[in-house]
Amino acid sequence: MSRTRVHNFSISLDGFATGEPQSLEAPFGHAGERLHEWMFATRFWAAQGDGSEGVGSGEVGSVGVDHAFAAQHGLGFGAEIMGANKFGPPGWQDDPDWRGWWGPNPPFRTPTFVLTHRPRPPMEMEGGTTFYFLDASPADALAAARAAAGGQDVRIGGGAAVVRDFLAAGLVDHAHLVQVPIVLGRGSRVWDGLEGLEDGYAVEAVPSPSGVVHLTLTRRVPRA
Amino acid sequence: MSRTRVHNFSISLDGFATGEPQSLEAPFGHAGERLHEWMFATRFWAAQGDGSEGVGSGEVGSVGVDHAFAAQHGLGFGAEIMGANKFGPPGWQDDPDWRGWWGPNPPFRTPTFVLTHRPRPPMEMEGGTTFYFLDASPADALAAARAAAGGQDVRIGGGAAVVRDFLAAGLVDHAHLVQVPIVLGRGSRVWDGLEGLEDGYAVEAVPSPSGVVHLTLTRRVPRA
Repeated sequence: MSRTRVHNFSISLDGFATGEPQSLEAPFGHAGERLHEWMFATRFWAAQGDGSEGVGSGEVGSVGVDHAFAAQHGLGFGAEIMGANKFGPPGWQDDPDWRGWWGPNPPFRTPTFVLTHRPRPPMEMEGGTTFYFLDASPADALAAARAAAGGQDVRIGGGAAVVRDFLAAGLVDHAHLVQVPIVLGRGSRVWDGLEGLEDGYAVEAVPSPSGVVHLTLTRRVPRA
Repeated sequence: MSRTRVHNFSISLDGFATGEPQSLEAPFGHAGERLHEWMFATRFWAAQGDGSEGVGSGEVGSVGVDHAFAAQHGLGFGAEIMGANKFGPPGWQDDPDWRGWWGPNPPFRTPTFVLTHRPRPPMEMEGGTTFYFLDASPADALAAARAAAGGQDVRIGGGAAVVRDFLAAGLVDHAHLVQVPIVLGRGSRVWDGLEGLEDGYAVEAVPSPSGVVHLTLTRRVPRA
């Protein structure tokens, strides 16, 4: 069964997944890279460069609990859905040459659906990633992504608004959030509007020696 | 040295220490007792009734990590500071007979300072608790409480606004927050306005089999 999953979604103690303001120079605003340092230290991350995403073949990096969780990000996906704020800095829709942050060979390697109110034609990139641009509800976007995923899972890639919207719509089967021990104070918060989320999910918390806490939300009733 | 400490301060995943609306019937609003169930299951809590607060002499209740943290709440304090919203429901200042939620023998057993813009004369209760009412800044309230604490520590008892104000003013030496795996969505949030709090505190996270995560904030540089 194809599932809908969130992985390696880092938040501050106060629930912000990015700081502000977001820009070309500062994709995460005043948060900088602080939400993701835990991941950069893993073998999962070190292995990104050699094309063996998720299999831990890098020769550096930790292989503890941070790696174990991080590596799930690359396993079993046939498509990703992301929000406009993940694809580019504010205003990218006005730049016909913008092709995402990731260069000619993005790490997604699947059909990747970008939610935007100003769609453009698909972009076929190197390495298996094709960006499709959709102005669609979460449910309709998921239907499109699932149809493209070849029976594999669909990753909800963020940012916060997209993760929040898919959780609120009851479309997420399991989510992995990483709580980093910093207080950002401002930015885009993942929890807003999700009152009672625990009714639908079992929540597990596992701390890492790195200082982060891995939170997993597993849907209580399997999706029909 | 007399320290300023926060203990057993429960928050939701989204950082709310109470729900809303708060009332005589629902002191924690729509949160009900859900933020405190972890504590009710401990031997610390079971022992409250026999006057042996904090020493774990109750005959029921868990003695694991939840108890170990909870019991710190009763140890070493010579005074408490609380906010108006902890002392009574909205409007208690208009009721000359209101003497707090806790009956004639409150559990504080020390001088207890209630911050309110409408002070009233002190109230001496049974068991060692005397309520003093202050319209004062956090620093001035702390000076008053410390003078009354006989060299022991001062507890910042909550609610969220008071914990936040004392943290923001740099007056807290260590804080124990308990993150409960529920999303409240609304209420009084402890993290607001505390951007960069991690610069001043080492943050440690310890999960409990009960499902909560104990967060401790230890001041990096001892208070002069």
